[in-house]
Amino acid sequence: MTEKLLGSIEAGGTKFVCGVGNDELKIIERVSFPTTTPEETMALVIGFFKKYNLKAIGIGSFGPIDIHKDSPTYGHITSTPKLAWQDYDFVGAMKKEFDLPIAFTTDVNAAAYGEYVSGNGKGSSSCVYYTIGTGVGAGAIQDGHFVEGFSHPEMGHMIVKRHSNDKFKGSCPFHSDCLEGMAAGPAIEKRAGKKGQDLSEEDLIWDIEAYYIAQAAYNTTLMLAPDVIIFGGGVMKQRHMLVKVHREFEKLINGYVKTPPLKDYLVTPKLEDDPGTIGCLALAKKELENS
Amino acid sequence: MTEKLLGSIEAGGTKFVCGVGNDELKIIERVSFPTTTPEETMALVIGFFKKYNLKAIGIGSFGPIDIHKDSPTYGHITSTPKLAWQDYDFVGAMKKEFDLPIAFTTDVNAAAYGEYVSGNGKGSSSCVYYTIGTGVGAGAIQDGHFVEGFSHPEMGHMIVKRHSNDKFKGSCPFHSDCLEGMAAGPAIEKRAGKKGQDLSEEDLIWDIEAYYIAQAAYNTTLMLAPDVIIFGGGVMKQRHMLVKVHREFEKLINGYVKTPPLKDYLVTPKLEDDPGTIGCLALAKKELENS
Repeated sequence: MTEKLLGSIEAGGTKFVCGVGNDELKIIERVSFPTTTPEETMALVIGFFKKYNLKAIGIGSFGPIDIHKDSPTYGHITSTPKLAWQDYDFVGAMKKEFDLPIAFTTDVNAAAYGEYVSGNGKGSSSCVYYTIGTGVGAGAIQDGHFVEGFSHPEMGHMIVKRHSNDKFKGSCPFHSDCLEGMAAGPAIEKRAGKKGQDLSEEDLIWDIEAYYIAQAAYNTTLMLAPDVIIFGGGVMKQRHMLVKVHREFEKLINGYVKTPPLKDYLVTPKLEDDPGTIGCLALAKKELENS
Repeated sequence: MTEKLLGSIEAGGTKFVCGVGNDELKIIERVSFPTTTPEETMALVIGFFKKYNLKAIGIGSFGPIDIHKDSPTYGHITSTPKLAWQDYDFVGAMKKEFDLPIAFTTDVNAAAYGEYVSGNGKGSSSCVYYTIGTGVGAGAIQDGHFVEGFSHPEMGHMIVKRHSNDKFKGSCPFHSDCLEGMAAGPAIEKRAGKKGQDLSEEDLIWDIEAYYIAQAAYNTTLMLAPDVIIFGGGVMKQRHMLVKVHREFEKLINGYVKTPPLKDYLVTPKLEDDPGTIGCLALAKKELENS
């Protein structure tokens, strides 16, 4: 009999990345499907996993989502602006097809967990993972547990101070100039009139961007004091960004808190593009062990 | 033989409040001593506790402090601007006199723990406690554990946006216009030219103050999503403040996150002036149980 596998779903706003892997969290196959309607997208997701002999599935979903197992809407995507997915019973739909342990958390929590078990958070007691891309979000882990309460964090919408050279009004429909409104990929593009990857490394926009990301690092340091903060997502693929973020962070913290050395404290993902998939596999494995 | 008691030390920047209590966390006696030098103040503290037959002591201290039990400077006050207390081995000094289990955390963590075990955090899975007084600080608890990592939080220094009617430059020596620099008691006094308690309830300064405290609530909601956020300290004794904070919070969050009802979510301490003492007693008891 062949080894049973772990399934991973990174459910994002533009695509669903589905993968299967083994107990060593090795990714065996991975595919992606566009995020359209639940009917269309989930048919492709289910079709993919039906090819495998699975033992557990981990889901990291865009949100907001209901993470409380004792809630009547546990496992649902809740008040998302993606209307077709509002109040969608994600875990219920999967359970109908797969009678397996299913872990359910946010996309950023899953990525945080991936880095925590196998990446730059490994060996730490606590880590925070940010994605700076189409949106901004973060997940936090302490001693193996996600930081959460009445719901999951939504760190992407924290308050930031405007850069003195930045006239951009912000692109968040809820808060205009919150972190996401000022620092997500679309904000860069609206400021510049072109995509971030088409800007030179010296463009002032990157200094502005680094200032906002450094504020996220600063507030995270003061509120959670984690062992490490990991910045992933498309914007952080600009390899010059991290050093700019370090520089802005040092100015902001101004010696008040003695953090670990910045090269170990504010980092990019060790798992590169894989923290989400590996995190979902690890969460599936954990769910199986606890089931 | 008389029942052995629990000891509590709330070590603040202006006074040390020492108390003894029983296993039901009932405060039996409480005294306070001015914070001068370690020699003077600690002689009074030790003298007070020597009168009792203690079994454990809980300390909630001003900071920053070293909370890592495996660190060579565990139990020390570290880089405080109070020079006489810099690098002071607080736990070591107590251990020399009292061969007992001693719990050591920040003053705000201790108060958070008090409310978590016996106050408005009781029954929640997570709570955050802010003090808004001479300084601003906060402690966070999830499932009985303090939120922490390389160090403890320093939430009082988070970034806030300036109120459009506020020209005050801020009073934080490290960050000028961070939360503490804009919202602590001394900031109110410097703006008004008189103490907060001498201002009328209708003074615009309270709206400005509420705006900053609401930003703390907002960022805490987005970063930790705790079940409840408790606001204590001298400024919150202004009984009109809480409703002003609710109003500003609603504007900031703008429907993005569905929090618990604000009357249950953003509250003042149930234990009134006692969360610190009760928290230290409870931490002493827990330390004894785990020793």
